[in-house]
Amino acid sequence: MTIKVFGKPVSPYTQMVYYVLKELGLSYEIIQPSSLEEIKTSEYLATKHPFGRAPYLDDDGFHIYESRAIARYLVNKYQGTKTSTILIPSDVQKAALVEQFISVEISYYSQPLNKIFRQFVMKKFYGTEPDLKTANETREEIEKTLDVYEKLLEDKDYLTGEFSLADLLHVPLTLYVIKNGEGDLWNKRSNVSRWLKNISERESWKNIATEYKLT
Amino acid sequence: MTIKVFGKPVSPYTQMVYYVLKELGLSYEIIQPSSLEEIKTSEYLATKHPFGRAPYLDDDGFHIYESRAIARYLVNKYQGTKTSTILIPSDVQKAALVEQFISVEISYYSQPLNKIFRQFVMKKFYGTEPDLKTANETREEIEKTLDVYEKLLEDKDYLTGEFSLADLLHVPLTLYVIKNGEGDLWNKRSNVSRWLKNISERESWKNIATEYKLT
Repeated sequence: MTIKVFGKPVSPYTQMVYYVLKELGLSYEIIQPSSLEEIKTSEYLATKHPFGRAPYLDDDGFHIYESRAIARYLVNKYQGTKTSTILIPSDVQKAALVEQFISVEISYYSQPLNKIFRQFVMKKFYGTEPDLKTANETREEIEKTLDVYEKLLEDKDYLTGEFSLADLLHVPLTLYVIKNGEGDLWNKRSNVSRWLKNISERESWKNIATEYKLT
Repeated sequence: MTIKVFGKPVSPYTQMVYYVLKELGLSYEIIQPSSLEEIKTSEYLATKHPFGRAPYLDDDGFHIYESRAIARYLVNKYQGTKTSTILIPSDVQKAALVEQFISVEISYYSQPLNKIFRQFVMKKFYGTEPDLKTANETREEIEKTLDVYEKLLEDKDYLTGEFSLADLLHVPLTLYVIKNGEGDLWNKRSNVSRWLKNISERESWKNIATEYKLT
């Protein structure tokens, strides 16, 4: 059995998949695109990811794309087989709250963070300067979301109370954006920064950061 | 046991929840906000939905928000108990593909549709005229997504081959946008329009459309 993850280790979305794999104690092989253009070729679109994105996962011939769907698949198939980490609990109500916070992560948290992430990528690879008005609006959007998180995390170590897939999915994009100079947004909120410490100082994430030289 | 759905029946996100409930054969009670402002009050934010949105669901005291999370919860708890409809299969690989297409729905399909939806809402309730440049960019974004769907749906009746939660979640927002004059985007693509017919002409959706006078 070989699990293959296609994508660049520098991508926060690929890192989400690594993080799940490590938490579940699974080994995997990395396949990197040969160029930025590869994921836009008609062959790639027809057979790998129809929207021209990465990562995708190949598990012994089973092909799946979209990082959060890959994460759920790995949990459903492998959780509990190699480590005792529970990313989605079997209890129906507890699982529902994990899903609730994954939806929050996608809709209110990662959407604005992704805008900042894309600006960095555009600047790095194409030299495009970010539009200041959009950048400011995006920062404002993140501020509002983090204000809500600050309340949600009052007296809680994790979003649902216990570490879960919902927390994990926040880590890569957040650290990417902080590394690129936006750390004050998190640091000035005590509950948020305590939570971020809890979810990013786990052994498996530290291994990823070392292995792929992320810090 | 009473399932209560809080939200306006005119909202596509509330309709997603109704559609799941009807497919699973569950009865429910509707609670409507007394005003647009209700979901922004500090009481609502503190106890119902911290981001000031609807719907939320109350299942015999268990409270959950975010429509797609509510949908998964209902499936996990009730699928197979009242009807034979399978919205998420128990097979791990088949379930993974449903999740893959839910992620596609959120990231590439409903994001641009939601921009159009919000423009309609803004116009209806606040008289704000839509920004033409944004509207055109959004239409272009939808065109690109539907081009990919047209290929994905070649020789297929549903996204994964069989009707699932992934298909269902597309229906309310699509019909809302079509009703408001954008139908050509779907009609001119034969696979897409065949699929839309398959997923919107089910008995349970027709009941919703009649009950809440959506057509």
